[in-house]
Amino acid sequence: MKETKFDYGMIGLGTMGCNLVYNMSDNGYTVIGFDKNRSQVETLKKEAGTEKISATSDLNEFLNTLKTPKVIIMLVPAGKIVDDVISELKPFLSKNDLLMDFGNSHFTDTNRRSEQLEESAIHFMGVGISGGELGARHGPSIMPGGPKKVYERVAEMLKAVSAKANNEPCVTWLGPGSAGHYVKMVHNGIEYGLMQLIAEAYHLLKECAAMSNDELHTVFSKWNEGELQSYLIEITADIFMQKDELTDSRIIDRILDSAKQKGTGAWTSEDAMNLQVPIPVIDIAVSMRDLSAYKNEREVAHQNMGGSEVKFTGDKNDLVKWVEQALYFSIITVYVQGMALLQVASKKYKYDLKLEDIAAIWRGGCIIRAALLEDIRSAFSKQPDLSNLILSVAFSKKLMQSQEGIRKVIQTGVGFGIPVPAMMGALAYFDSYRSGWLPANLIQAQRDDFGAHTYERNDREGIFHTHWNQKK
Amino acid sequence: MKETKFDYGMIGLGTMGCNLVYNMSDNGYTVIGFDKNRSQVETLKKEAGTEKISATSDLNEFLNTLKTPKVIIMLVPAGKIVDDVISELKPFLSKNDLLMDFGNSHFTDTNRRSEQLEESAIHFMGVGISGGELGARHGPSIMPGGPKKVYERVAEMLKAVSAKANNEPCVTWLGPGSAGHYVKMVHNGIEYGLMQLIAEAYHLLKECAAMSNDELHTVFSKWNEGELQSYLIEITADIFMQKDELTDSRIIDRILDSAKQKGTGAWTSEDAMNLQVPIPVIDIAVSMRDLSAYKNEREVAHQNMGGSEVKFTGDKNDLVKWVEQALYFSIITVYVQGMALLQVASKKYKYDLKLEDIAAIWRGGCIIRAALLEDIRSAFSKQPDLSNLILSVAFSKKLMQSQEGIRKVIQTGVGFGIPVPAMMGALAYFDSYRSGWLPANLIQAQRDDFGAHTYERNDREGIFHTHWNQKK
Repeated sequence: MKETKFDYGMIGLGTMGCNLVYNMSDNGYTVIGFDKNRSQVETLKKEAGTEKISATSDLNEFLNTLKTPKVIIMLVPAGKIVDDVISELKPFLSKNDLLMDFGNSHFTDTNRRSEQLEESAIHFMGVGISGGELGARHGPSIMPGGPKKVYERVAEMLKAVSAKANNEPCVTWLGPGSAGHYVKMVHNGIEYGLMQLIAEAYHLLKECAAMSNDELHTVFSKWNEGELQSYLIEITADIFMQKDELTDSRIIDRILDSAKQKGTGAWTSEDAMNLQVPIPVIDIAVSMRDLSAYKNEREVAHQNMGGSEVKFTGDKNDLVKWVEQALYFSIITVYVQGMALLQVASKKYKYDLKLEDIAAIWRGGCIIRAALLEDIRSAFSKQPDLSNLILSVAFSKKLMQSQEGIRKVIQTGVGFGIPVPAMMGALAYFDSYRSGWLPANLIQAQRDDFGAHTYERNDREGIFHTHWNQKK
Repeated sequence: MKETKFDYGMIGLGTMGCNLVYNMSDNGYTVIGFDKNRSQVETLKKEAGTEKISATSDLNEFLNTLKTPKVIIMLVPAGKIVDDVISELKPFLSKNDLLMDFGNSHFTDTNRRSEQLEESAIHFMGVGISGGELGARHGPSIMPGGPKKVYERVAEMLKAVSAKANNEPCVTWLGPGSAGHYVKMVHNGIEYGLMQLIAEAYHLLKECAAMSNDELHTVFSKWNEGELQSYLIEITADIFMQKDELTDSRIIDRILDSAKQKGTGAWTSEDAMNLQVPIPVIDIAVSMRDLSAYKNEREVAHQNMGGSEVKFTGDKNDLVKWVEQALYFSIITVYVQGMALLQVASKKYKYDLKLEDIAAIWRGGCIIRAALLEDIRSAFSKQPDLSNLILSVAFSKKLMQSQEGIRKVIQTGVGFGIPVPAMMGALAYFDSYRSGWLPANLIQAQRDDFGAHTYERNDREGIFHTHWNQKK
C-alpha cells in the first residue's frame, strides 16, 4: 500500500465538515477527516467513494498522513470544544503548521488562540463561512482572517471551493487576526435583521390581507424578481409551499412560533454597543427572538388582553405594494448598520477592512446574498472610507424613494396592533440619522443636573457645567 | 491630642465621596477620608467644620485611625482603579475587615473581587447608590449586596443615610454577592429608557406643537402632578426655565445634542441578551445615545436629504394629552422590562431578589423614583414571583387604557418624520407580548431550511427537521 499523504485535514465530521470535504475533493484536493465519533468516521469513509477522501478516529494516523507543513481545518462547535481540540493538537504541531477555525468562534477567542499559537510559530486563521450545508457542499461565502502570507498558502483552495458571483470567487483575504470571524459575526447580525423584517412582512400580509400560503408564495416569488431579489426572499417563497409530512397542512402552520438562536446576533449587538455604533434593527431582531420564546407568557397575556384587532378595509394590492417598499427600505437599513459597524471595527481593531471586498464576497454563497450587495459593493468602490451608506447618493435616494411605503405600513400596523418592531427601528434610524437636531440636548441637561456629568455647547468649544436650580 | 478612631473610612474624595461623608457625619458617624489628591484632602478638612470628619493622603494614617474591624467605603471610578485600590489595601486588611465598593462596578468584577477577598476572610460588598450628588448628600437610594451577616454590621448606618419614602429607608439587603451592583445596573438601564422617552416627548411637542420653553415647562410641571409624577419629569420641567449664563437664551437651547454615557445602559442590554430577556426600549435608548453622538454625519445627512416636514394642523391640547398617555404607556414598559430582567437574573445568578423590596427602595433617593413605583411594589407584594408586570391585572389595565395615546403619537411622528424609536419599541413590545402568535415560525422554518437547525411543532412534542425542497 503506497504511502498517501493528504493535502488537508478536517477535524469535525458533522454535515458541514463532510460537505466541505466533498467540495474540496471535487476540486481536486485530498482530505483526511478526523472525528472521535467513530460512526461519523465510518459514514464518511463509506460514502466518500474516492481515494481522495479518508477518515479516522486515530489522532496519530490523522496527523501522520498529512502533508507537511500541515494544514488542518476545524469545524467543531464554537466555545470550549475549540480550545480542547487545540490543546490536544498543539503538542503534535510544528513551526509553520496551519490550523484554521472554520466555526462561528467569537472574535476575541480567535485573537487569544491566534496569539497563543503564534508563540510557537504555529499559524492560526479564523475563517467565517456562510451558506449552510448546501453552501458547504457547493460553494460557501468564505471570510478568512489571519496573516496575509499564511492566507496565500490556502488561497487557491479557498477560491476553488467558494461560491462564485459574476464568476468571481466569494472569498478574499479580509484582514489580520480575527478579521474573518468579526466579519462573519456581523454577517450573522445582518441575517437576524433580515429575517425579522421578512417575518414582519409575513405577519402583516397574513393578518391584514388574510393571505393564504399559496398567495404568500406568489407574492414572495414576485418580490424575488424585483429589487428584493435575495436568497432569503427566495427560500421564504418556497417555504410557504412545503407540505407537512405528518398532517394535511403546510409545514409553516405547524411550526412553533418560538425562535431559537445560536447567539451570534447578540454578539453583534454587544460589540456595536461597545464601539458605540447604533445598529437598532439588529438589536431588535435579537430581542424579538428572545420575546418569541416566551410563548407561554404570550398566550396568557393574549387571553387576558386580547391581541390585534384587524379590520383592514383597504386594497390588498396596495398593501402588498407598500409592504414591498417597506421591506426594501428596512432591509437596506440592516446592511447600512452592519457596514457602518464594520467600518468602525476596522479602525478600532486595526483590521483595515475593504468594505467593497466584503460586499463582493457576500454576493454569493451566503445567507444574506442579495441583489442589493452589488449596489453596496459599488458604493464602497467609489468611496472606500464611506462611514455610512446613507451618506452616499445612491442609498439616500433608495431610502427617500421607499420611505412612503414604510410609513404607511407602520401606521397600519400601529393602528391594528400588529407589531412591526424592526421596521419601526429602521424608520426611526433613518429619521434620526437625517435629523440635524435630536433631543439629546435634554438628555445632556438632565445628566448634568443630576450627576454633574457636564455638556458641550452648540455655539462654542469647551466642556461646561451648570449649577441647576436644584430641589431635593 | 486624644487618639480618635473613626467609624468609617472613605476612599475617593470627589463630590460624591465628600457628600456621602457629610451625610454620614450628619447622622452621627465619624469618617476619615483618603485620597491621593492632596487638594481634595485639604478641601474636605477645611470645609468639614467638625471633628467627626478628617482626611489624609497618608495610607498608613488612614488605616491606623479606623476602628477595628475596619469598614472602608470606596467611591472611585469603576474598572481598573478599583482593582488597584484593592491591591494596595489588601496587605493591610485583616480577617473580618469590610471593604465596600459604592461605585458603578460591573457585577462580574464584583463577583471576582468578592471571591478573591473572601479567600483571606476579608469581607466585600458591592453597593449601588443612586441620586447623584444631592442624593449622596441628603439621602440616596442604596442597593447593597454581599453576605447578609456582613450587611447587618452596616445596616443601621445605611438606613440612617439613605433617602426615605413613606418614612421607610430606601435601602435593604438585596442578596448575596453582586446582587446590589446588578440591581444598580438595571436601575441605570431603566434610567436610560426613561430619559430617551422624555426626550422623544420633548421632540414631538417642540416640533409639532411648536412649544416654547415656557410652554414646555408648564406642560411638564402639569404632568408632574399626575400619573407621570417622578424625579425625571420634575427636573425636566425646571430645565426648560434655566437661563444660560453666557447668552440671552435658555441653556437648553445652547446644549449640544450629542449624548454621552458611562456605559451602564449598555451593560444592562448586554446581560439581558445573555439571559435572553427582551428589553428593547432600553436597547433602543442606548443605541439612540450612540446615534446622537454622530452629530457631524447627521448634519451632512440632513443637508443631503432634509429632515422632518411637520405640518401639524391638529389641536395642540389634544397632542399634549396624547403625548402624556404615550409617555405613561412607554414609561411603564421600561419598568416592566427592567423588572422582568431582574426576575430572570435573580434565578440565574442565585440572588433570590425580592422585587417588592427593590421597587420599595427605588421610591426615594434615586433617579428613577416615580409614583409608579408604589404600584410596582404593590404588584410584586401580591405576586412575588410575577415574571412580567404585564401579566398583573393592574398593569395590563394601565397599558390597555393608555394605548390609544401611544398609537396616535407614533402615527403622528411617522407621518411627519419625527423619530420616536423608544415609544415605538414600547408599543411593539406590548403588541408582541400579547400576541398569542408571532411570525417566529417563519424564522424557525428558514433556520431549518438553510442550517438544519430543527424546530418544534405547535401540535405535538419533539424536535423536528424537514428536508426542504432545496435549490442551490
